[in-house]
Amino acid sequence: MSTASTAPVPVSRVHHWAAEADVLVAGNGCAGASASIEAVAAGAEVLVVDAAGGWGGATAMSGGEIYLGGGTSVQKACGFEDSVDAMYAFLKLATGPDPAEDKLAVYCEGSLEHFDWLVRCGVTFVPKLWTEPSWEAPTGYGLMYTGGENAYPFAGLVPPAPRGHIVHMEDKLPGERSAGWMLIKNLTATQERAGVEVRYNTRAERLVVDGERVVGAEVVTFGERYFVRARRGVVLAAGGFAANPAMLSQHAPRLATGTFLVGTDNDDGRGIRMGQAVGAAVRHMDAGLAAFPADPALLYRSLLLNGRGHRFINEDTYPGRVGQATVFQQDRKAFLLYDETTNEEAARLAEHVVQPTWVSDDLGELEKEMGIAPGVLAGTVAVYNAGAERGEDPEWHKAAQWLRPLEPPYGVLDLREAPYGVFTIGGLHTSTRGEVLNAEGDPIPGLFAAGRTTSGIPSWGYCSGTSLGDSTFFGRRAGRAVATA
Amino acid sequence: MSTASTAPVPVSRVHHWAAEADVLVAGNGCAGASASIEAVAAGAEVLVVDAAGGWGGATAMSGGEIYLGGGTSVQKACGFEDSVDAMYAFLKLATGPDPAEDKLAVYCEGSLEHFDWLVRCGVTFVPKLWTEPSWEAPTGYGLMYTGGENAYPFAGLVPPAPRGHIVHMEDKLPGERSAGWMLIKNLTATQERAGVEVRYNTRAERLVVDGERVVGAEVVTFGERYFVRARRGVVLAAGGFAANPAMLSQHAPRLATGTFLVGTDNDDGRGIRMGQAVGAAVRHMDAGLAAFPADPALLYRSLLLNGRGHRFINEDTYPGRVGQATVFQQDRKAFLLYDETTNEEAARLAEHVVQPTWVSDDLGELEKEMGIAPGVLAGTVAVYNAGAERGEDPEWHKAAQWLRPLEPPYGVLDLREAPYGVFTIGGLHTSTRGEVLNAEGDPIPGLFAAGRTTSGIPSWGYCSGTSLGDSTFFGRRAGRAVATA
Repeated sequence: MSTASTAPVPVSRVHHWAAEADVLVAGNGCAGASASIEAVAAGAEVLVVDAAGGWGGATAMSGGEIYLGGGTSVQKACGFEDSVDAMYAFLKLATGPDPAEDKLAVYCEGSLEHFDWLVRCGVTFVPKLWTEPSWEAPTGYGLMYTGGENAYPFAGLVPPAPRGHIVHMEDKLPGERSAGWMLIKNLTATQERAGVEVRYNTRAERLVVDGERVVGAEVVTFGERYFVRARRGVVLAAGGFAANPAMLSQHAPRLATGTFLVGTDNDDGRGIRMGQAVGAAVRHMDAGLAAFPADPALLYRSLLLNGRGHRFINEDTYPGRVGQATVFQQDRKAFLLYDETTNEEAARLAEHVVQPTWVSDDLGELEKEMGIAPGVLAGTVAVYNAGAERGEDPEWHKAAQWLRPLEPPYGVLDLREAPYGVFTIGGLHTSTRGEVLNAEGDPIPGLFAAGRTTSGIPSWGYCSGTSLGDSTFFGRRAGRAVATA
Repeated sequence: MSTASTAPVPVSRVHHWAAEADVLVAGNGCAGASASIEAVAAGAEVLVVDAAGGWGGATAMSGGEIYLGGGTSVQKACGFEDSVDAMYAFLKLATGPDPAEDKLAVYCEGSLEHFDWLVRCGVTFVPKLWTEPSWEAPTGYGLMYTGGENAYPFAGLVPPAPRGHIVHMEDKLPGERSAGWMLIKNLTATQERAGVEVRYNTRAERLVVDGERVVGAEVVTFGERYFVRARRGVVLAAGGFAANPAMLSQHAPRLATGTFLVGTDNDDGRGIRMGQAVGAAVRHMDAGLAAFPADPALLYRSLLLNGRGHRFINEDTYPGRVGQATVFQQDRKAFLLYDETTNEEAARLAEHVVQPTWVSDDLGELEKEMGIAPGVLAGTVAVYNAGAERGEDPEWHKAAQWLRPLEPPYGVLDLREAPYGVFTIGGLHTSTRGEVLNAEGDPIPGLFAAGRTTSGIPSWGYCSGTSLGDSTFFGRRAGRAVATA
């Protein structure tokens, strides 16, 4: 992690531009790659730099889900109706508080065109729905629910449709290269065909300013520094800040402990800090995805309890939503309570089979182990079982397919020490054109940004695929805007 | 609320300094007043400007509690032992996550000296403890618990001592001038004696910069603008941003709805934005105090339930802590459940008597009214009553003095629509000397800040008195630092 200053360099101190382009893009993950492709298409000469030794960024480590809708060919082939309005209405509910309404409007409106653009870049999606609760689908499935659209409370508010479009990849194996790798492989191949120059092992460190205007950047490669002039502007697409412990503590302390990084070491927030150094505003720096640390196959079929033995969310919603609720609202205290039937089903379906921490016929004995007040667990199970007998979940409205009265012996999985995979979703405040905005909401001339360097579609709440979707969609828009700046 | 640009003015564009001083302080609440007093004492010539027509800021609207400890004369006279270590240990727990350890260390170490300084400024404290749960004490009481020190979980972790020192004020009447008014009255009188020039109806709008250094500000009074040169530096002490709906949504959306402002219309975040415009970092912009909207006398004696009918915090902790838990973790959904005895006691003690929303002998009937799943309320009461019979609260460890099995008929107060009084506690990132820091943690030359324009002692968690305490203490330090800058 680089801790070098991000204070901007006045152009008067630049005596030599060692490189020059219309557009300089910092970062070659899916946001930067998309920006570069569209900037070239709009007629600009583009130079991309990336601190890593090759393309990828956090994109290459992701599950390769892209949140798209409004009636894509994949949705239709799987038998789903969808509309721009339904997609907007859902995302407005799911990504709040303070959903990015302006960005959501153009994102949903442009989703079908964006799908086509991804396909033109070589990305393919198999039109087949994956229905088993899981973080990712196996090879051969191109669509899944990734935001709790078909669960309480959203299912009763907006007509549900699956919108997690999974980039196709042959021979996808757990723990190996992911579908996200396949996305960025296609985007960088497209970028290469378009003639974009990319310099790896090259980190953008400081912006160069001429008065209020950003006119380039200082970059560093293997300890050597040089200045790159950007005639039309700079696009910061350098990832989030989950790899920067100081920034996590400063803005999102609940993500700083009991977690592990989903991303790369270069997600050190440098892009955000470079923006701040020239007066950029930030949004929702406290926000982040926290992946719930249990296999969804087990989670959906269990009772999820907080540290006091009470349920606090429907278990069948998007597990990222469950993770956020646990980390931000329950101090990371969670237990799963289930029975033998659940255990057997989950063991058959889960990627990693885990044994319960405690097993007993006696809820009183279990609650002692869990440190829960006497009588609470019996009450929790009685309320749940009574509802399940009637085929309903009066507390949290878990869907009927997951309801079944629990029978002794019970198992409890103690997740209080289980680590959450996290990345940040707060960042620079940008317009729908990717312009970086100052504290009054005015664009900073010559400065653009995209991806997790910005606050985007996943404003606070998160759905899988909104980050790749936001990064590619608004990456493209930033590329087009900077090319004509 | 001013929406004029905060973009800094290069000194080259300043053709005339209409005023000049060693130090310019923006804001004459308790932070700015304290800074000005100490800057003068350190030999500086000081000019203070304030957007309002007179002194006061949010300080004048506050309850006048100042968080002080380590064994003040007031604590001793009331029979309490306290130590710097205990004060530090408590605040570290209560103000996190991410407590400001560096600031806490100097704050606790300097607390006795700060007490003496306040007394020298004319502030008096009556050495008498107020013990009834309430937001403020009546006239004649100078000490109270204001952070949950004597309640779970803190009481079991750190030797408790009351540290809320209440500024004495004769004839304090509810709804009239508060003890906070008395604090700022004394500080501004001290300021006047020290010969500080104060210009009211004068808002600092933009900083003036010479390269990276802040050298003054543009101010506006009745539409006329002029430049003030600050030879040593500028202190931003212009309040928080709770009066700025756009900033609230952008950073702290959970404080943006269902709330009302505790502060003045000038708490529009301008000081924070002026800092950001010159590259300052911010901390914990999501954080804020949210006052729980029920009289503490009733709250302590009731069962506090979330929207699902479960308890979620001990009712006898600091009600600001209860408010934060409800707003940030329970979507502002809260009910109070109590019985006739409680109702009578609370009616005798509360400032405003409220009637329960529903009354019934039948918990099943009540839970229907509340929209809670069948059986939950009976379970909640059974667990609580069984513990109360034994003189304990196994779920949340409310102190024995507040425990009594509830008896029918029960009353429920529906607080789901009740508004929370809020102010923000996130702001500019500053050093313990009040220097404003950039994103790398380096000071911005010539720029200082204090009070709710900064992130201070109340880093995220809050105790009454930490804001006045932090603002005056670090206001003083900023004043001394800028005077010798």
